[in-house]
Amino acid sequence: MINDDDFIKSCDVPGPTKENIRAILLYKSMVQKEDIVVDIGCGTGGISVEFAKRAKKVIAIDKNPEAISITRQNLKKFNVSEKVQLIEDDGLSTIKNIDNIDIAIVGGSGNDLEEILEVIHNKLNPNGRIFITAILLDTKVQGINKLKSLGYNPKLVEINISNGRILDRGVMMISENPIAIISAKKR
Amino acid sequence: MINDDDFIKSCDVPGPTKENIRAILLYKSMVQKEDIVVDIGCGTGGISVEFAKRAKKVIAIDKNPEAISITRQNLKKFNVSEKVQLIEDDGLSTIKNIDNIDIAIVGGSGNDLEEILEVIHNKLNPNGRIFITAILLDTKVQGINKLKSLGYNPKLVEINISNGRILDRGVMMISENPIAIISAKKR
Amino acid sequence: MINDDDFIKSCDVPGPTKENIRAILLYKSMVQKEDIVVDIGCGTGGISVEFAKRAKKVIAIDKNPEAISITRQNLKKFNVSEKVQLIEDDGLSTIKNIDNIDIAIVGGSGNDLEEILEVIHNKLNPNGRIFITAILLDTKVQGINKLKSLGYNPKLVEINISNGRILDRGVMMISENPIAIISAKKR
Amino acid sequence: MINDDDFIKSCDVPGPTKENIRAILLYKSMVQKEDIVVDIGCGTGGISVEFAKRAKKVIAIDKNPEAISITRQNLKKFNVSEKVQLIEDDGLSTIKNIDNIDIAIVGGSGNDLEEILEVIHNKLNPNGRIFITAILLDTKVQGINKLKSLGYNPKLVEINISNGRILDRGVMMISENPIAIISAKKR
Repeated sequence: MINDDDFIKSCDVPGPTKENIRAILLYKSMVQKEDIVVDIGCGTGGISVEFAKRAKKVIAIDKNPEAISITRQNLKKFNVSEKVQLIEDDGLSTIKNIDNIDIAIVGGSGNDLEEILEVIHNKLNPNGRIFITAILLDTKVQGINKLKSLGYNPKLVEINISNGRILDRGVMMISENPIAIISAKKR
Repeated sequence: MINDDDFIKSCDVPGPTKENIRAILLYKSMVQKEDIVVDIGCGTGGISVEFAKRAKKVIAIDKNPEAISITRQNLKKFNVSEKVQLIEDDGLSTIKNIDNIDIAIVGGSGNDLEEILEVIHNKLNPNGRIFITAILLDTKVQGINKLKSLGYNPKLVEINISNGRILDRGVMMISENPIAIISAKKR
Repeated sequence: MINDDDFIKSCDVPGPTKENIRAILLYKSMVQKEDIVVDIGCGTGGISVEFAKRAKKVIAIDKNPEAISITRQNLKKFNVSEKVQLIEDDGLSTIKNIDNIDIAIVGGSGNDLEEILEVIHNKLNPNGRIFITAILLDTKVQGINKLKSLGYNPKLVEINISNGRILDRGVMMISENPIAIISAKKR
Repeated sequence: MINDDDFIKSCDVPGPTKENIRAILLYKSMVQKEDIVVDIGCGTGGISVEFAKRAKKVIAIDKNPEAISITRQNLKKFNVSEKVQLIEDDGLSTIKNIDNIDIAIVGGSGNDLEEILEVIHNKLNPNGRIFITAILLDTKVQGINKLKSLGYNPKLVEINISNGRILDRGVMMISENPIAIISAKKR
């Protein structure tokens, strides 16, 4: 496991996706050694690092050059650089050129969530899996509705985590912001 | 209602107890115009202000002089100074000298929670109510067990609040840290 | 305060809105003795009972006859029948005929949330307050967006409550389902 | 991944530990093919099944014969029977006879948590990991304090999960009860 604090970070880049959320994504994804993974809106690169350790290849996309730079540093730190293709570009236009996706993780989608999901749907292999990590209420509703309209049977789990700060006088709980994971599997 | 941001604050003083927690305390307390309220560990004074608006008298206690100063400013700001007696001293030694309590709210107790509850129990009027606002796991367990041993039938509710930050691109939820309210009523 | 269990209930009627949510609604609403309150989708009548105790008049609306019947029983049980007008009808068509609203609480709206909010907006007195209690993700997004488009500055708070079940071997926490309160004030 | 509903269940046996909690435990445990895992209070067997799929051996202990029977059925269903040794006995007396533990998971401990942690501490291999899944407030405090006194640097994470029920009219969130995971690593 990787502690959140072990990732190199930047104030200008969201992430990393927190430890317990990465854990749940890894488990739900059932990622295998031969899988091709696309990480759309890779941010700090937390998800790319985790999947690179377990999959055949990760394609990490972010339109923010600072995110690409931070992700590159984290890939190097965790020795998975050669497993990951980094693309500094818009998520939607990039995935149009990618085929043969086993796992697609949408962390950032600008205003293109619905179109991105449509393209992913077309590019996804049979038994392929889609995940959306959503921090906006609007993304949750839009993601569920779009996946339903594409014929999926999506699931949504909302995760509220508090971490104990262990003090001399007792254990104080400090909350992370809630995050939802939407998941769907292609039949 | 008072917004959390409307209270005068200090970095060195905890509080104010957040809006929704104050709301729940007010409701559970069934505070009446003739009630005498003790606020032990008044911190920023949020609870003292709210109860002063609705009770006959509030006795606000804190051993931290900065807390007393901030509470004084908030009492003035919300026009309830003459309803509140401010005591800069240790909670345990102070309440030993107070009689005739209708509502006791324990927000800070140092290491004296059990003794404080014992003294409150002896000073509390029939139908008097005790509340503990707990942020430490240890306080929750200790508070429940002590109240049980004093013959009460305590209740505990844990409250996790997230507030929507309404952005152009959607609503992002920001969590407050969890807090528990333990309540008990004297028969 | 009223315990949730003190309300008369029916399997076919949602509610009552839980204690801590009622507490927060009462606090946020700043309900006064002269206020006219509309409770749209009154369900079990929990909110109508609470506001009837504090306001001048409550108009409770539900299209489900069973809800009207249960609400009537609860109004009687808590001695507030003469403060409440019960209307068994569709929320949208009913409020079109109501003027002079100080506080509107939308608990159930069928598919008419946006239209209901529009009508409320027109009927609401200056300084009037609107509340939506939302259990669906979709209601949260729709409610916020509609209130914004009507010129309000809405707020959203999501509330996760767990109640302690106090056993011999310790305190086990039992969760209520999350609920959001959207609030807005007319200027 | 395994859905919670795929486990065989019994009303008289707690569990299975929910999907997302299993995911987090698997991730934090860094379970490897050569690991020996002890599951104390195995209940329905959810944790035993997951670790049996990834470890060398699991020793599953429960004093409740019904739990042992249900666990046996689940081991069979998920094809991991030969990886798991089932022991119907008290957790404390059983682990005294086990050596060479890499991962110990304490799900149920009766009143013996402190003693069980002491014995585990003595039996745990270097770099061994201890996990407590706690639903009682008291277990959280006791577990943290005992692990500290044994020289560990324990961590505690509290997990509140809500699952979306996807209805025609929108997504309703249904809460699981909160659960804490305490973790510690032997140096």
